[in-house]
Amino acid sequence: MMNTPLTLVSLVERAEKYFPKKEVISRTLGGVQRFSYKEIGGRTRSLASALESLGVKKGDRVGTLAWNHHRHLEAYFAIPSMGAVLHTINIRLSKEHLSYIINHAEDKVLLVDADLLPLLENIKDELETVEAFIVMTDEETLPDSSLKPLYSYEILLDKADEKYTFSNKIAEEDPAGICYTSGTTGKPKGVVYSHRGLVLHSMAISLADTAAVSESDVCLPVVPMFHANAWGMPFAATWSGSTQVLPGPYPTPQLLAELIESEKVTITAGVPTIWLGLLNELEGKSYNTNSLRAILCGGSAAPMGMIRTFETKYGIPFIHAYGMTETTPLVILSRLKSYQTDLPEEEKLELRSKQGMVVPGIEIKVINENGEAKQDGKDMGELLIRGPWIADEYYKDERSTDAFRDGWLHTGDVATVDEEGFVKIVDRTKDLIKSGGEWISSVDLENALMAHEAVFEAAVVSVPHPKWQERPIACVVLKDGYHDTVTKADINRFLEPQFANWWLPDDVIFMEEIPKTSVGKFLKMALRKQVKEYMSLQS
Amino acid sequence: MMNTPLTLVSLVERAEKYFPKKEVISRTLGGVQRFSYKEIGGRTRSLASALESLGVKKGDRVGTLAWNHHRHLEAYFAIPSMGAVLHTINIRLSKEHLSYIINHAEDKVLLVDADLLPLLENIKDELETVEAFIVMTDEETLPDSSLKPLYSYEILLDKADEKYTFSNKIAEEDPAGICYTSGTTGKPKGVVYSHRGLVLHSMAISLADTAAVSESDVCLPVVPMFHANAWGMPFAATWSGSTQVLPGPYPTPQLLAELIESEKVTITAGVPTIWLGLLNELEGKSYNTNSLRAILCGGSAAPMGMIRTFETKYGIPFIHAYGMTETTPLVILSRLKSYQTDLPEEEKLELRSKQGMVVPGIEIKVINENGEAKQDGKDMGELLIRGPWIADEYYKDERSTDAFRDGWLHTGDVATVDEEGFVKIVDRTKDLIKSGGEWISSVDLENALMAHEAVFEAAVVSVPHPKWQERPIACVVLKDGYHDTVTKADINRFLEPQFANWWLPDDVIFMEEIPKTSVGKFLKMALRKQVKEYMSLQS
Repeated sequence: MMNTPLTLVSLVERAEKYFPKKEVISRTLGGVQRFSYKEIGGRTRSLASALESLGVKKGDRVGTLAWNHHRHLEAYFAIPSMGAVLHTINIRLSKEHLSYIINHAEDKVLLVDADLLPLLENIKDELETVEAFIVMTDEETLPDSSLKPLYSYEILLDKADEKYTFSNKIAEEDPAGICYTSGTTGKPKGVVYSHRGLVLHSMAISLADTAAVSESDVCLPVVPMFHANAWGMPFAATWSGSTQVLPGPYPTPQLLAELIESEKVTITAGVPTIWLGLLNELEGKSYNTNSLRAILCGGSAAPMGMIRTFETKYGIPFIHAYGMTETTPLVILSRLKSYQTDLPEEEKLELRSKQGMVVPGIEIKVINENGEAKQDGKDMGELLIRGPWIADEYYKDERSTDAFRDGWLHTGDVATVDEEGFVKIVDRTKDLIKSGGEWISSVDLENALMAHEAVFEAAVVSVPHPKWQERPIACVVLKDGYHDTVTKADINRFLEPQFANWWLPDDVIFMEEIPKTSVGKFLKMALRKQVKEYMSLQS
Repeated sequence: MMNTPLTLVSLVERAEKYFPKKEVISRTLGGVQRFSYKEIGGRTRSLASALESLGVKKGDRVGTLAWNHHRHLEAYFAIPSMGAVLHTINIRLSKEHLSYIINHAEDKVLLVDADLLPLLENIKDELETVEAFIVMTDEETLPDSSLKPLYSYEILLDKADEKYTFSNKIAEEDPAGICYTSGTTGKPKGVVYSHRGLVLHSMAISLADTAAVSESDVCLPVVPMFHANAWGMPFAATWSGSTQVLPGPYPTPQLLAELIESEKVTITAGVPTIWLGLLNELEGKSYNTNSLRAILCGGSAAPMGMIRTFETKYGIPFIHAYGMTETTPLVILSRLKSYQTDLPEEEKLELRSKQGMVVPGIEIKVINENGEAKQDGKDMGELLIRGPWIADEYYKDERSTDAFRDGWLHTGDVATVDEEGFVKIVDRTKDLIKSGGEWISSVDLENALMAHEAVFEAAVVSVPHPKWQERPIACVVLKDGYHDTVTKADINRFLEPQFANWWLPDDVIFMEEIPKTSVGKFLKMALRKQVKEYMSLQS
């Protein structure tokens, strides 16, 4: 067969050539703008041409510090399609981590949103490799800034070649992108995405049995484009000629609900926190969300109660999924098998609240001290992943050997697999609670807590215990209006019928907020510290 | 990213592990049988183990001479998954071609259906490399045969290892299969399929925007498994855990209609001749075909009248597609874009009767003497194809240089591309009719003829002409009951309003049957000869 390489060039060229009239709808601080793929294609070529004139060459890293909008989408294709490497930078990193990853990736040029300029101005003296800054703004004049040299994105594009020819010297194993994971400890770790990995991943999320991204879709990625390529949606949607709705800076639940209604969004993707916020927004108001065929949810476990409300109250199908920055990210996705659709509603919901089945192209196994875990939905073990869109190392990082061993990615997530092959993530290896020699899943307790009508969110952590080694403590944030009416005893009574006695938390702590990572996951380390302080005050 | 190779091993292992209860329904001469993927998996491993014990090694060719049934499916996975090469042999080849391709491929072992044994007995003295014959039969005793040594498939499996471990030494570029095209001239040409090509093709036909093969599907490939891998359906359906219905020997329209009804088939695939037969069968009878979500039609152009009848009368969506043995085969497929669904019915039908848009992952271009043809739906040129599941040569064949040049497959098909990117195959380069320096498309005339209520099928060929160089002649087969009522003049009157005057055929010849190739395509060379004889008799 022909050795045609799998590269991102063909994705954007397909949109230009076969879907020139379809649109990308982009919200910036200047308002909502609409671009055809014909325009996006020309602008993407112009951006590549402009970067080339700034000295960017094959293999160079070009960073983006930006919200989800059309210019970010243009960077998604322009940079890899000229053979350079797209470094999407998490805008929520600390000052130290920000300068660390820009220096570690050796970014040559940075593209930055006007409102995010201060993040770079703060660290400009630490940056060792950056030769140019390009500000992505609708304004005609450049903002005042201490960053030098500073270029205007639009002025560069005006002078550039919109018929620029993308590189045909790209091998499919060549790097196309890099993204750093915002770990809870230590410095961020870089994950390099190859063209091959991103193309295969784009196919994988467009399969009829996965997210089924299609030309007829209107895709709204709420998950940031600086986080695991917005789960690959911008790549797949462009390839398919889908309409894309990019929600821009500071997307609020109200804004998302309005965009879903006005643009007739069919599929949207984000973390559970986003969907909790959207549910709150939908309650009591009368948005029309009939166009939605799927909410794709990953990043952390979706509480069953939330899935139930979206599906039964609003009729919006909810697709639970699992992945990591290291996995491009999609590896596991929940869809019922055809013979499961006749199961009783509660059993289906139980299945749907699992992360689901491994997608075609990827292999998983779950291992514990006895070898491969039994496929019985109970036997727990660490989830291992292998496949052509899974990283095989962290970029120039000694910590690679912990996670990548024997040809498998060791995720650090604890999972069960049931008879039907449905995976359930029960915990992080480091968050599992070992009480009296037995494991307690903090995630199971959290999901149960979050099903309580008064609970907005809940996290469970372990504390050291003289007799049992570790014991669980529940940290609960109540919904507005429940602060005076719900007690620790209420919470305990709610949990009692659902768990073995020894699983029940030793204490329930009511909090204003649970600390989270920059991508919205519970920051259990910080929470454990808070709990420890609280408990020492009590004793 | 990990360099995990794309191989067929993972496809069958996914079905075994995650869809053990789903079924393969197989019709053999012994009746309809049902096997779970768990059973198919074990039997596939046993077959690989049995072949290994017969001396089959990595890279060896193993041929199949068989109908569509479960044993053929087992061979589809067992042979490539042990590193050997699956050679699917067209049972309709002539004696000479049959021995030629078996010798040319150097088949070491042949798997053959009991009822097809005579085909091999006829040529046994010509076979130079075959060391063993395995007869695929439900019977317990071996049939009498002059082939030696002859083994029973089921007895071999009984003695073999159903826990056989598939090879992990397969590179994705390694050959997995070989299929010879039954050209209309010269000896058949071999096309080698790599593991990579077949895996990517399996993804491609499972995309939401293509054939969308899914777990919830019940797939009935009518297209033979000896013809371009039954369009890849057995590979994709196994990977997805779809139910498969394999229709076995001599599938008649009645049998197909019965299987569609009884097994609730959702998608089926075959050439236009099959669907003309099915339409005849459906007329006047009361089959329930509600389960069908798609008829996939390729191999030659589907007449618009047939598409209309399936869709409007029976409510069965019809998907027109295009491919060749050299292209694994799917490269072009017709689905309306979202904004085309509001077009008037006749315009939609016009679009749907084109072959459609190039699928993700493949590139096409149409070239003529002026360079790349205008994308206006009129400018004709030869269709060129490039991509990772397109062959780059014929196996050990000097004729490769004609078709594979400058990195593109030159198809020999003449096509137009319209503004929306929809490709229409207007002819074979060799079948275009050049009249007075202008091109006439025989396919356009054929489609118009086949829309006449009295016409069963029609072909148009050119004859030499002293003044105009070439002129078209129509060859028409009438439906039963019309032989005495329809005249040449009727046919001419029907065509007149649809075409420029100089496109109209110089004569209409009524025939009993149009000669066809072994895969059901019009054999224009033979037809031209018949027409010439007929005309010399007339003059």
